[in-house]
Amino acid sequence: MSTAQDTIGGEAEPWEEVTPDAARRLLVAAVEAFAERGYHATTTRDIASRAGMSPAALYIHYKTKEELLHRISRIGHDKALGILRTAARREAGAAQRLADAVSSFVRWHAVRRTTARVVQYELDALGPDARAEIVALRREVNAEVQGILDDGVASGEFDVIDVRGTTLAILSLCVDVARWFNVNGTRTPEEVGELYADLVLRMVGAAK
Amino acid sequence: MSTAQDTIGGEAEPWEEVTPDAARRLLVAAVEAFAERGYHATTTRDIASRAGMSPAALYIHYKTKEELLHRISRIGHDKALGILRTAARREAGAAQRLADAVSSFVRWHAVRRTTARVVQYELDALGPDARAEIVALRREVNAEVQGILDDGVASGEFDVIDVRGTTLAILSLCVDVARWFNVNGTRTPEEVGELYADLVLRMVGAAK
Repeated sequence: MSTAQDTIGGEAEPWEEVTPDAARRLLVAAVEAFAERGYHATTTRDIASRAGMSPAALYIHYKTKEELLHRISRIGHDKALGILRTAARREAGAAQRLADAVSSFVRWHAVRRTTARVVQYELDALGPDARAEIVALRREVNAEVQGILDDGVASGEFDVIDVRGTTLAILSLCVDVARWFNVNGTRTPEEVGELYADLVLRMVGAAK
Repeated sequence: MSTAQDTIGGEAEPWEEVTPDAARRLLVAAVEAFAERGYHATTTRDIASRAGMSPAALYIHYKTKEELLHRISRIGHDKALGILRTAARREAGAAQRLADAVSSFVRWHAVRRTTARVVQYELDALGPDARAEIVALRREVNAEVQGILDDGVASGEFDVIDVRGTTLAILSLCVDVARWFNVNGTRTPEEVGELYADLVLRMVGAAK
């Protein structure tokens, strides 16, 4: 995670609440290692070494490699949900709330693309309990967007035939930004967020 | 690849042109192994064993693990491009061609999700030459969709402000179906294809 990435989206470093410093460094090292080589090809030794620590020092903070993935996935989902929820629950009409939710969710996935990829692509590597916890968070993410769509349909702002399917498509569109976003490309996270907010308002038939 | 998957989307088994049979079995085994454990955590020994063959028998057909990934990626992209191109180049108006292109591309990504995930998530594992070849195919995929959008804007069927950005969003939406599609879920590949065709027509402001 470079300093440039940390500031582009205007969001705070997602690992700031992880203490002590050694535990945080190990988490950042794990995200990078999982993203580069995949969860199964990464050893706790690789992670410790990347963080400039010994394997014994790693075990003080994390008992297993899965515990690292679980912490990463939990924090990543908590942050993404928090950002989405803040936008979704503002005092505003459904169209404004949807535009804000989409643009902030897109920015997060562009800026935090390395974390987002690990979190999305390594979900199957979690054990049953950890996985159940993450799936519950994902349902909350889903409910925030579906709630805005329900509100917009009820108020007549939106024209949506399939609310559940459209919710799924909107979230999928935002999440996939983490796959293709290129920091050397022609668009900033803010520009992609604005474009996507416009496209999503069209998807829900928002009255202009 | 189950028989059910092979027929759901109405597309032929993507590896049928790979001969002899042993080379095809190894390719199918490699797709499964890469999808389950990731490219870097998979050995050629794992792949041979999964195909019920010896490592020596594998080397008759593929010199390296990267050659297997390259073949998978090449065939996967060729098939996806072919399906998209067939729909995109029909004799029809831009709206009909876009709807057909999106629904067939979505069906392919739902039915062939295991292949599509490997192809999308392991792109960085390819060497420079293989990667350049795949990137060129991806540009062709992009050009097909952008061509329909250009036609629709020229004919007045579509109202699009940012053709390049909207093209990117449409393809991203279709590709990400491979990540979330669940064969035990409530929607068939055909139903997702129809929903997405409708959502994309809304995104381009297609006149009803």
